[in-house]
Amino acid sequence: MENRIKALFGIRYPLVQGGMVWCAGWELAAAVSNAGGLGLIGSGSMSAEELRRQIKACRAATKEPFGVNVPLMNPRAESQLEVVLEEGVDIVFTSAGDPSRYTPHLKAENVRVCHVVSSSRFAMKAVRAGVDAVVAEGFEAGGHNGREETTSMVLIPAVCRAVDIPVIAAGGIATGRQMLAAFALGAEGVQMGTRFVASREASCHVNFKRKVLELGEGDTMLALKSLQPVRLVKNEFFEEINWAETHGVKAEELKKILGQGRSKKGMFEGDLEQGELEIGEVAALVDEIKSAGEIVRDIVSEFEIELNRMKTLHL
Amino acid sequence: MENRIKALFGIRYPLVQGGMVWCAGWELAAAVSNAGGLGLIGSGSMSAEELRRQIKACRAATKEPFGVNVPLMNPRAESQLEVVLEEGVDIVFTSAGDPSRYTPHLKAENVRVCHVVSSSRFAMKAVRAGVDAVVAEGFEAGGHNGREETTSMVLIPAVCRAVDIPVIAAGGIATGRQMLAAFALGAEGVQMGTRFVASREASCHVNFKRKVLELGEGDTMLALKSLQPVRLVKNEFFEEINWAETHGVKAEELKKILGQGRSKKGMFEGDLEQGELEIGEVAALVDEIKSAGEIVRDIVSEFEIELNRMKTLHL
Repeated sequence: MENRIKALFGIRYPLVQGGMVWCAGWELAAAVSNAGGLGLIGSGSMSAEELRRQIKACRAATKEPFGVNVPLMNPRAESQLEVVLEEGVDIVFTSAGDPSRYTPHLKAENVRVCHVVSSSRFAMKAVRAGVDAVVAEGFEAGGHNGREETTSMVLIPAVCRAVDIPVIAAGGIATGRQMLAAFALGAEGVQMGTRFVASREASCHVNFKRKVLELGEGDTMLALKSLQPVRLVKNEFFEEINWAETHGVKAEELKKILGQGRSKKGMFEGDLEQGELEIGEVAALVDEIKSAGEIVRDIVSEFEIELNRMKTLHL
Repeated sequence: MENRIKALFGIRYPLVQGGMVWCAGWELAAAVSNAGGLGLIGSGSMSAEELRRQIKACRAATKEPFGVNVPLMNPRAESQLEVVLEEGVDIVFTSAGDPSRYTPHLKAENVRVCHVVSSSRFAMKAVRAGVDAVVAEGFEAGGHNGREETTSMVLIPAVCRAVDIPVIAAGGIATGRQMLAAFALGAEGVQMGTRFVASREASCHVNFKRKVLELGEGDTMLALKSLQPVRLVKNEFFEEINWAETHGVKAEELKKILGQGRSKKGMFEGDLEQGELEIGEVAALVDEIKSAGEIVRDIVSEFEIELNRMKTLHL
């Protein structure tokens, strides 16, 4: 069976590392790509010039394909995409925004474009915009999230039914077993964010990495539903935001509480109570900080063991 | 590979039909059991004497094993369990309550007991209570739901890791592909509610069955989080409840709006706007009313086709 995600990106394993804000710098992206997955630099926290520096460093650290994740709602998205083109990066994952805005231009420059969606409707919109693949991201995922709250178990088959281009599953996936489940649902690749936050190469603060190991079921929750939903660790910052939101505080005030610095304070500076900590539900299954290469190898190995187990299955 | 769910219940396929309130009468339970799955009578909407009548009718309609689902928070739970024992039913699924209250007594009477849980912690509590199996029910499921909002993709492996007894996966499962994904995650059986609501034998109103076919992604939402979370169709009743809840209306007032009759009005009498309609996210993938036997056969067939597809998979 031909795997279109491996073919599209020219990679050994159809395993993409999420471009998480404050976590996915060049060290992580290069390590994942060197291990046979697809590493992504997460540009969300970077100025255009910082992104340029990161791309150069990544290229120096790996000969394998890597890409850049660009959240389209970021005011810096346009200048970041210019840097991406100037530096000759030919794989871009876009998220949180309208895929029709930049996809035609990127495609004209021979960039492979993949867009993150939370519904079949958005997946079809991405297809019309001309993307090469979509990431179907379920409710359990960390970071920004869809309003419809469709979970991976339902979203993956729904998106696979709606579009003919290859689908990468994201949300709730951190193990080889979960990767296999995503393939059973029709995905041809997976994207993992949370698992790689707890990696040696992630650029976030070690306090945040250790926090991920401690998290159990129910320790994250979708917040900011009136503004833009995001899955957060339930810490003091979350309680503050959540109280404000459930007591009718308006969008403008919420934005003030959020400020610009709270995600940096949490994930980069390691303030586990006053900072904003974005992470997926699957943190409950992540118990060890490993190197990114080890993570890729362990997932592939578990996938193969579980696939062999499935082969002995019958009803 | 031995399947402990098949062995536990003496059934052909490890496919359990949910005991949904107003939907799961004896006709549905008998049809599922006759097709090789495990049918359950949903006692939630029944008086003890109505339950007795349903059990007798089910027994007359099938020679195969069947069971009864008893929501433990129901004030009638104790009298229902008495009827179950008097009528010699030896399979009971309990939900929404403390498993330690009745499990020892049921086990002493040689009843096989399975308890529905929404977390690993509750699963371990059920094991201590002595149950034979647990249903791990994710956030995407219809009806009453956990507070931690853990989805099936994360919950199934988490519960499988936490307990040694067999795990039945529920929430977001209506197809053979999804059943296979649940097995990849470690489950040995699945429970499907939503899929069987859209069956000819379901005892709910045909308006509700047809409504299930129309539902798309995002058309259900978890409501009543301050009282007891329940996944509902977003109709006028939902908007009323949701407005009240997000505007600080207290629990006692919410209970009044709910009344006793709103779920009957919706699911049994077919009032699609003023009634309470409980259904899972996976309704988005259910497009046809079929007989329960056809549903079981189609799921088993798709499971086998997809399993064969998986056998050709390699990384």
